[in-house]
Order: sequence, then structure tokens, then C-alpha cells
Amino acid sequence: MALVVVKFGGTSVGDVARIANAAAKVAAEVKRGNKIAVVVSAMSGVTDQLLGYCHQISSRPDRREQDAVVSSGEQVTAGLMAIALQSQGLQARSWQGWQVPLRTDAAHTKARIVTLETDGLRQRIEDGEVAVMAGFQGVTEDGSIATLGRGGSDTSAVALAAALKADRCDIYTDVDGIYTTDPRIVPAARKLHRVTSEEMLELASLGAKVLQTRSVEMAMRYRVPVQVLSTFDAAIGSDFPGTLMTDEDPTMEQQTVTGIAYSRHEAKLTLVGVEDHPGAAAAVFGPLAKAGISVGMIVQTASASEDDRTTDITFTVPRGEADHATHVLDEARASLRYGALRADKNVAKISIVGLGMRSHPGVAAMLFETLAARGINIQAIETSEISLGVLIAEEYTELALRALHTAYGLDAVESSREG
Amino acid sequence: MALVVVKFGGTSVGDVARIANAAAKVAAEVKRGNKIAVVVSAMSGVTDQLLGYCHQISSRPDRREQDAVVSSGEQVTAGLMAIALQSQGLQARSWQGWQVPLRTDAAHTKARIVTLETDGLRQRIEDGEVAVMAGFQGVTEDGSIATLGRGGSDTSAVALAAALKADRCDIYTDVDGIYTTDPRIVPAARKLHRVTSEEMLELASLGAKVLQTRSVEMAMRYRVPVQVLSTFDAAIGSDFPGTLMTDEDPTMEQQTVTGIAYSRHEAKLTLVGVEDHPGAAAAVFGPLAKAGISVGMIVQTASASEDDRTTDITFTVPRGEADHATHVLDEARASLRYGALRADKNVAKISIVGLGMRSHPGVAAMLFETLAARGINIQAIETSEISLGVLIAEEYTELALRALHTAYGLDAVESSREG
Repeated sequence: MALVVVKFGGTSVGDVARIANAAAKVAAEVKRGNKIAVVVSAMSGVTDQLLGYCHQISSRPDRREQDAVVSSGEQVTAGLMAIALQSQGLQARSWQGWQVPLRTDAAHTKARIVTLETDGLRQRIEDGEVAVMAGFQGVTEDGSIATLGRGGSDTSAVALAAALKADRCDIYTDVDGIYTTDPRIVPAARKLHRVTSEEMLELASLGAKVLQTRSVEMAMRYRVPVQVLSTFDAAIGSDFPGTLMTDEDPTMEQQTVTGIAYSRHEAKLTLVGVEDHPGAAAAVFGPLAKAGISVGMIVQTASASEDDRTTDITFTVPRGEADHATHVLDEARASLRYGALRADKNVAKISIVGLGMRSHPGVAAMLFETLAARGINIQAIETSEISLGVLIAEEYTELALRALHTAYGLDAVESSREG
Repeated sequence: MALVVVKFGGTSVGDVARIANAAAKVAAEVKRGNKIAVVVSAMSGVTDQLLGYCHQISSRPDRREQDAVVSSGEQVTAGLMAIALQSQGLQARSWQGWQVPLRTDAAHTKARIVTLETDGLRQRIEDGEVAVMAGFQGVTEDGSIATLGRGGSDTSAVALAAALKADRCDIYTDVDGIYTTDPRIVPAARKLHRVTSEEMLELASLGAKVLQTRSVEMAMRYRVPVQVLSTFDAAIGSDFPGTLMTDEDPTMEQQTVTGIAYSRHEAKLTLVGVEDHPGAAAAVFGPLAKAGISVGMIVQTASASEDDRTTDITFTVPRGEADHATHVLDEARASLRYGALRADKNVAKISIVGLGMRSHPGVAAMLFETLAARGINIQAIETSEISLGVLIAEEYTELALRALHTAYGLDAVESSREG
């Protein structure tokens, strides 16, 4: 008997029939004698629809209210899933974030989990009930609903698995595992049967949309075994063809590059003619940090000459926060004294990831050469121990992905598409 | 300065533009120096869509879970309304039922309000914030979401007005007041400028869909002045052409019949061949009451002969509960020992209402004669001090309404449509 947390993403609960299908998977798992907690996302399209309403009313809707609106999507799915599980003959009950409670800080629209009190929920699971927790949401200290940010249901699921000390956390999604890159763009992409959590973390943070970054971090920290698998394939627990996220395994054959991620969720901001003096960068990024906007890549050009004591600062922010960032910098203009502020939302970040990069030189050179050969200009660079990311014009995304996938030897061999 | 509770129904907040329009009405009221609490319904169609999901998954969805699903509709509108009010330059904040808290009993899908603790909400209103409460919903003692039944947002609004000791409660709806009958069916229907709460109570309970019965009862009990008016007409507080619900006023000209209501929300159940002995009725209605199903009209026919010791019992239940009632009676069949159970959902209830009925004889005779002249069979009768209702086949609804409206002299005179 195992305690399993099962998370269903938006397309897995995209309509009533799919919710019933997901419930059948849970019922099969219960039949095997396992105890189950389910975490659900909103039905696909619902979150965007609700966000759309908010933005039709206000270009910058109050974040507390936006959270109240948007969190309803998961509330609906949780209730429907409980009804579907009952139709399978199971005992089941939905739990909203505030009912568990899953407590968060007050950073609305991207709140972080503070505590997850599972006593009530655990008791009912032990009594044989399936707990269905609404993902993505929690409750702040002052009793407001807060959401955990895009993809936050993954984090809800891993957090619940950690709190319950679950034996595993199965993330059902519309893809059947982690690929070397997006197979919709690169047909030669291969599925990875295993991926280390470090690599997964990079892939997630760099735009491979399978798991939210924070969920991977949390899985690493609390050693929650996470499986990514497709709702539309096998039954839970069968010999699924998904991807298992593992701790680093020395016996694993180490490829130099494991995968290539991309993200269209970036925007590039450039402050032109910033006074070049010590503390200039702090003056720029202080107000942004205060406004809760996370800055990604940063490139600062040197002053053109001794006479021209100004510099340009280019950096990336999440595309959805570009307008907010622009507003913050506009307001700080008097103290910052910059010449102009330019925003470019038509950029993409391409990142190559692999534990083997640590020990293999020449990885960066290969990246630069491959892009240069296609005439693709690199606008910014970001590096970590096991990843290397570049910012390019968005229109080159597909071209860059395919070229790099081939260059790093990741293309599937015709006869064996399972890597 | 007045404290006003303003309630917007589904069509008044039917889309984003209408929510903005409603918010503008509130802003105008705030500008006059008034303090406002807003109560909102779900956007029109949303509740039915959510209920549809539940019933697609299960023919008898768990009521707790159905409430969790359906209550999300008001949650969304409350958040959007708060955002719209902020766009009007107002301070505003949404309140879910559990956040107020509005506490209910555990009768899911038709819970009753137990307490409404408004300290937190009132403090913020006094500080100049507009409170936006999600209608229709509350929280049970065990922390589950419960809804107040169809039209429950009216009850939420009147309860909030009572708890806040508001100066008035304005109910914005898609009709511009209370009419002598449904003007969509009877073009000669007249709008009533005033209606007594007793009459309103009968009209509401008998199917005039303007206000939920319980909201009228509550308005009577706590003496909350209620106005019904159209969102699509005048600004709040202007010389609106709505209907004011008043205490009985002896100077008011007393018409015999004030209005005619109808309801298509009934279903007729007939138990054929019930053993006719003392306690038979109790044996039938006991299990229904236990299941929380409210029974309306009851007709029991006498035994046919001394030999045939059985009787038929016909009664009405809300149409939405007909399947549930059938199920309950099926289960009780062994102990009830009846011959057959027949359900007929194609019935309508027509009710004439008027304080003047108490002192005017002949009202019932006029009803029977008018229907008989059109060949309309009366299947059951229900009377109260100031109303008289009959159950007929649903297909005769329009015919009966028009004939009775004329018979009781309610038709508008061409030259003066405002009665």
C-alpha cells in the first residue's frame, strides 16, 4: 500500500469526459489498495478566460481580486473531480486551498507556500476517502485567496506530497514525458526516460513547460519522487512510458547536453542613457525588486567614451510583467535619470541543459557557431553550472531549436525513437 | 448620508461591459456621499453551465461538491466587480461567503443563513471602501461552502442589509419592477409602483421570479426597505420607475387581485394505490421531509369503495427535486406498499394574489369559471389568506394567464400603462 499524490493538469481535466477518465485512473489506483490525494488544475482555457475578464475591465487589475477570480477555476475542477470519483464508487471530497489550509504569503498572483496543514485531510485519507485539492491556490494570513503563479498546481501537488510524505507524486499532463526539446517544433525530439532533478530544474526554469520550476525545487528539497506521464496513455501504476525525475545517478550515461528548452515568456527592456556611476544598476533593479518583478538576464554596455558618462542597461522580465515593469521604471524616472525606455516583447530564450556540460568543454562554442551560421543574433547570454541560455529574436525560435538539436547530436535515430 | 446595499442580478452583470455599467451606478451613489455594500450574482448563464457540468458527471451529484462548483460563479463576479469599482477610482474589496463570514446550516444547495458577522466588512465600509459580497453562498460550521438555493443572492442582499441596518436595499434586475403578471406573456400587464410585502411574498413564493421568497420574508421580518429596479434604466437614487415593497398601507386603493404569478418549476407526483389507513400520508411525506424535499400542493382522493382500501395521493415538488423524490419513494416502496408512482413534469402553477381577496368573495369562483370556459382542467388547488393557486397542464400556461388577467380587470388601459 502506498500513499500517492496524483496531479491532473488542464488538458487532463479539459472537459467532463476527461474528468471522468481521470477519475477512472484514480479508481484503478485505489483498487490496488493505495491511498490517494488528487490535485487538479483548472479546466483548460478557463484560467485564460478568467484572466481575460480581469484585463478587459482594467489594464492593471488588483492582484488580490484577480486571484479571487482566477482561483475559481481550480475550485470548479476540484468539485467536479470529487463528484466523478463518487460516481466511481469512491468516497471523495474536495478541498479548496483555504479549507486545507494551504497558507501562503501575500504576494498575490505569485504567492509562495508558507505552511500546508494536512491533519484534517490526512485523517480523511486514512479513513479511505480520496482527497481532491484545488491546485494553484492558498490563503494568506489575512484570509484572502492567493495563487501560486502559472503552473502553480504542480507546486501544490509536490508540496502536498511532501507534507503527506507520499511515496510518489504522479504529474499527469498532455505530454507523455520530458523530451530533449519540444517535439511539436522538432519532430526528431526524443523522450527521456529519466532526468536528474538538477536538469529538470533547469529545463523547467528555462521554459520547458512540463513542470513549474518551484515544484521541481520543492521535489529536490523534500526528495519527492516525481513522475511525469500522459493522461491519455496507460493506467496509473502500469508500466508507463513517462519520465522519472531522479537524483543524479553516476551509472547513467552522461550525455553532454540532455535537452534544449525555449521560452516565449520573456520580454526585453532596455534603459538607454543611464548615468554611469556606482550604484546605477541598484537604482534600476531596486524599484523592480520592490514591485516583486523578477529580472532574468542582464546586459550592461560600457560607456561609449570618457565624455559620455552614460550606459545602456538591457534585461529581461517575464512578458506578463513587462507593462508593470515599464510603469515602475516610468515612475522612478526622476531619480533614475535615463534617456529612454524601450520594451521588446518579441524575444525568445533558448537554453541548452545538461549535467555533462560541467565536464565537456566546447558546448558554448557550438551554440554560438550554430546560431551564427544561421544569421541569428544573440541579444543576451545567461549561464549556470549546467545550462547556457541565449536571448534571440522570437521569429528565429523554431530555426534555432532544430539547428541546435541536430548540432548537439540529440536527433532520434529513425529505427529507435525511444532514447 | 445613507448606507445602501445594492444587489445586481445575473443579467445586470452578464458580461464585462455590464459589470462596468453596474460599477458606474455604484460610483454615482458613492459620489452622493453614501456608503455602499454590493452583492452580486453569477454572470448570467454561468450557474446553469456549472450545474450542467455536475449533472453530466452524475445524475445525482453530491450536494456539498455541487455547492463548491456552483458557488464559484459569484466568486468570479465579486472579484470582477471589485476590479471594476477600483477602475472607477473607488476603494473596493471582494468578500466570499466564507470570508465575511456568512454562516449557514449544512443543507447544501438550499442552506439557510445562521449568522452574518459583519464586523470586518462594516469597518472597511466605514473607512470608505465599497464591500462586494458574493451572493448565494455561505460557509457551514465544518468549513464547507453551501449555497442558498436559486435566487439566493436576493436573500444574501437582504440579510446583509439587515445585518448592517442599511437604510435601503436596492435589487437591480433585468425587469424594471413588479408587474401584475409576466409582461412577456401578457402584453397588457401593468407595473405596480408599490406592493405590500405580504403580496410580494405570495408573488415570490408562487413563481414571480423577481425576488426569492426567503429574501421577502427576511425583508418583512427585519423591516428592510426593498426596491426592485432595472439595471438598464436610471442611475441609482434618481427618480426610478421601479417597485417599492412597503408595509401594508391602509390608504392604498385595494384592488381585489394585485397580480397573477405562475411557476413552471413544479412537478406532480402521484402515488397510485396507497393503502388507505391512518398514518398513510405521514408514511409518504416523512421520508421526503427527511430527504429535505419540500412538498407543495397535496391532493388525496377517497377510496373508491369499501372493498378497495387504497387511495391515490398526488402532490407537487420543485421540478429539480422530482428525480430525487422519485428515488426516495422508490427506496421506501417496501414499507409504503403503493401500486405505482407516476411523475409529471409538464405542469404549471397559476396563482392569483391580492390583499383584497380577504374581503372580496367570488374570487375563487371567477378563477374556476375562467379556466373552465377555456377547457383547462384543474389538477390541484392551494389556498392562503391572500392567494389562490391551481395546478394545470403546462401547455395552458399562457392561455390561462391572459384569460385571468382580463377576467380580474388587470389589463392596462391603452392611454395609461403605468397603473
